[in-house]
Amino acid sequence: MGDVLELGKLLAADDVIIDGGNSFYKDDMRRAAELTKQAIHYVDVGTSGGVWGLERGYCMMIGGQAEVVARLEPIFQALAPGRGLIERTPGRTGDDDRAEQGYIHTGPVGSGHFVKMIHNGIEYGLMQAYAEGFEILKAKASETLPAGERFNLELAEIAEVWRRGSVISSWLLDLTAQALVQDVTLDHYSGSVADSGEGRWTIEAAIEAAVPTPVLANALFARFRSREENSYSDRLLSAMRFGFGGHVEKGAK
Amino acid sequence: MGDVLELGKLLAADDVIIDGGNSFYKDDMRRAAELTKQAIHYVDVGTSGGVWGLERGYCMMIGGQAEVVARLEPIFQALAPGRGLIERTPGRTGDDDRAEQGYIHTGPVGSGHFVKMIHNGIEYGLMQAYAEGFEILKAKASETLPAGERFNLELAEIAEVWRRGSVISSWLLDLTAQALVQDVTLDHYSGSVADSGEGRWTIEAAIEAAVPTPVLANALFARFRSREENSYSDRLLSAMRFGFGGHVEKGAK
Amino acid sequence: MGDVLELGKLLAADDVIIDGGNSFYKDDMRRAAELTKQAIHYVDVGTSGGVWGLERGYCMMIGGQAEVVARLEPIFQALAPGRGLIERTPGRTGDDDRAEQGYIHTGPVGSGHFVKMIHNGIEYGLMQAYAEGFEILKAKASETLPAGERFNLELAEIAEVWRRGSVISSWLLDLTAQALVQDVTLDHYSGSVADSGEGRWTIEAAIEAAVPTPVLANALFARFRSREENSYSDRLLSAMRFGFGGHVEKGAK
Amino acid sequence: MGDVLELGKLLAADDVIIDGGNSFYKDDMRRAAELTKQAIHYVDVGTSGGVWGLERGYCMMIGGQAEVVARLEPIFQALAPGRGLIERTPGRTGDDDRAEQGYIHTGPVGSGHFVKMIHNGIEYGLMQAYAEGFEILKAKASETLPAGERFNLELAEIAEVWRRGSVISSWLLDLTAQALVQDVTLDHYSGSVADSGEGRWTIEAAIEAAVPTPVLANALFARFRSREENSYSDRLLSAMRFGFGGHVEKGAK
Repeated sequence: MGDVLELGKLLAADDVIIDGGNSFYKDDMRRAAELTKQAIHYVDVGTSGGVWGLERGYCMMIGGQAEVVARLEPIFQALAPGRGLIERTPGRTGDDDRAEQGYIHTGPVGSGHFVKMIHNGIEYGLMQAYAEGFEILKAKASETLPAGERFNLELAEIAEVWRRGSVISSWLLDLTAQALVQDVTLDHYSGSVADSGEGRWTIEAAIEAAVPTPVLANALFARFRSREENSYSDRLLSAMRFGFGGHVEKGAK
Repeated sequence: MGDVLELGKLLAADDVIIDGGNSFYKDDMRRAAELTKQAIHYVDVGTSGGVWGLERGYCMMIGGQAEVVARLEPIFQALAPGRGLIERTPGRTGDDDRAEQGYIHTGPVGSGHFVKMIHNGIEYGLMQAYAEGFEILKAKASETLPAGERFNLELAEIAEVWRRGSVISSWLLDLTAQALVQDVTLDHYSGSVADSGEGRWTIEAAIEAAVPTPVLANALFARFRSREENSYSDRLLSAMRFGFGGHVEKGAK
Repeated sequence: MGDVLELGKLLAADDVIIDGGNSFYKDDMRRAAELTKQAIHYVDVGTSGGVWGLERGYCMMIGGQAEVVARLEPIFQALAPGRGLIERTPGRTGDDDRAEQGYIHTGPVGSGHFVKMIHNGIEYGLMQAYAEGFEILKAKASETLPAGERFNLELAEIAEVWRRGSVISSWLLDLTAQALVQDVTLDHYSGSVADSGEGRWTIEAAIEAAVPTPVLANALFARFRSREENSYSDRLLSAMRFGFGGHVEKGAK
Repeated sequence: MGDVLELGKLLAADDVIIDGGNSFYKDDMRRAAELTKQAIHYVDVGTSGGVWGLERGYCMMIGGQAEVVARLEPIFQALAPGRGLIERTPGRTGDDDRAEQGYIHTGPVGSGHFVKMIHNGIEYGLMQAYAEGFEILKAKASETLPAGERFNLELAEIAEVWRRGSVISSWLLDLTAQALVQDVTLDHYSGSVADSGEGRWTIEAAIEAAVPTPVLANALFARFRSREENSYSDRLLSAMRFGFGGHVEKGAK
């Protein structure tokens, strides 16, 4: 943040700074306002595609002044994946369609990272939906269920078949299928799941605008919870249960 | 369940079986229908008060045929806590008020346990609300926060002061205050929180009637989660993150 | 249900009944147990692909005895979409791969519909994640936000660009893009969202096995809530707020 | 905010400003830092008790420098409800117990409002738990249930009996009983439920410290949702369902 303004000192009027990372969009807006005093332009570009971007292409969400973005258009055109083999959305018309090429001008400074932020919020929700579903499938073999109600399901096969025309086919499902075919136990993962700013900021943006987001928020909380052992909250529940019912927890120290 | 019908064989016409436990209300209904063939009556009584019932009183929710419940009234009257020191609800009138004495006839067989079941569902939600709140208070001292934004809050004092006229005063808060004054770390609890049938059946009843119950359901799920270590769901999230971003989890094996 | 057993009367030993609908898997198990007394076989086939199945292909999850499923294999082979243009999952080997053709034998009777049921549970979660995300994007233009913090985002363009290599590309996103390009207001929908048995049974299956499913359950509850106006629950919140704070709701009658 | 600093101009060194409202605790911290330049002190006092405070007493959570708070002690002592009839928490000892009198010094400036903020977050969760429970009770009479599975429950009697020794007795339940005895339909409420800053800031504080708060967040979201009709999110679900299944919503325009 300080660094961007530092950078501004090295530049001349009408230069453009492109922030292609995952900055917080309000930081973009503040920096751009500072830099504009020196007539330096600022463009925020959110990208999505992960480490597969080179192979699979990646899309760009670009915030900034229209003239400045237009000036940089050759760069975005060169980086964008192009239409490739992806089928056209029925109802779209026209030839010059930047969205179909894989990049859009989302609006003023900050809006590129804002849109990318929401993308990540959605990503958390999608991932958690698959994760919960596969855990139910796996748990169907659990010994806590009556013997006659258990199934030993082959999760890698299920992920694979869902890639074939199902309503829930997606790139995240492709990755799931890939992980499960390698090792269906997933035992080399500890399940301590990181989260980054975008997921958190998404919920803050939802709260600012009073939008109910139970799925996106619970997906974030599942990650928080994955990194806790023996949470204070759970211990307090145990303490209350002991208080009113004399219940002693299993495995209590 | 089989036992209740077994018990029926030992009884004579017009006898009454009282189930004072936490049976599933649909089991009550099925059993009563069986027993009625032998002219044996069935009454389901849900009670709430925990191990403190003797000292503090406990209330009863009674399902069964009106005549049968009326016949047993002296028993319920004897067991009920009576009005005690609890202030009268403004707007209530009349002298003969069983609810104010601490027991009610809720309706036909099964309805007593149904009402008790929902009571427990609510209980889970209330407990989880306090638990989350106290965890945020505790976390305000966390080293993950910027140094200038931390508070070392005295949780036992906070619980105590909230007992004094606050909007969130309750018996569960009294128990919380009691647990925290004994040992504010709660370190002798592992935080592996049990759940019983009522909490689960509450969500099933909500789903049957299409009632949205995000708080009650999430309170139940928090208990499920408290008993898991290293869940499959979380490991799958880690696997997907590795898949699209090359992210390796902290502390991965 | 009765009908399936009725149907059994018209069949001869060793005949096979295929239930290709969305039956509850415990009903499958009960029916199969009945029919087996007459030596009639039962196979449950869950399919996913929606009304686009003919064009896009659809996948099948098949529950039943191995010999019986094997006997019907030519049918499934004929119906399955085949590998088509979908890239092979890295790590898969071998030639004879039914999952890659678009169908799998999931296990004993009931398991086909069980797997399909979880598929639908996941589907609810995915849909809700996108829906919440797009609502935040739309709300970013809301007049309740400070003027300097609003963006007028073009939702159809955003959906389109996310189809181009992003981490959240999926078939449901393709459908979203299609809906938004036709009418970005979505004003011809009332937003009263139906749910079917599978979404509900998924949560019940999760509860039976003590699997925390906050995202799948909240997605279901969002649909319940979408069909309510002026819910009792909300009115009770208003009543409590009036009770402790004298707060009168905006727009109260 | 500006006003507080404005106020500072009217004061002299060593004067104390008490903010007894519901300010955001980070605003307290910033203001206090400004005022300290003029040697003016700042104390933030969160209070809870609602409009019943005069009659029932109300408690105070006080943030500020120890010496400054000590100087004001006579004021807090005069305002505090005192021990009254509330039973002592087992395990507490000593005579000089401000918490038992109804006020505490929570720590440095900001901590009083921080603790009050979490109090309100918990309040939202508690209220929502009761609200969901009563909605399930009411829905048990719904015509969407099979005729033999319905109960017509008397909600006012249930609330009343739960006041009598049950585990879920609380002041909020007292208020619920009071509202239901007046008009069990609650029809004069529209169910459009307001929320204030504290509920929102609680979730933000939880996110800052990575504390999972599914219940508190969902309680907030239920309020957001109560104020929406025909949400964009729901309309998008309907649009997707139409897209993959040709499902037309009931009551669609």
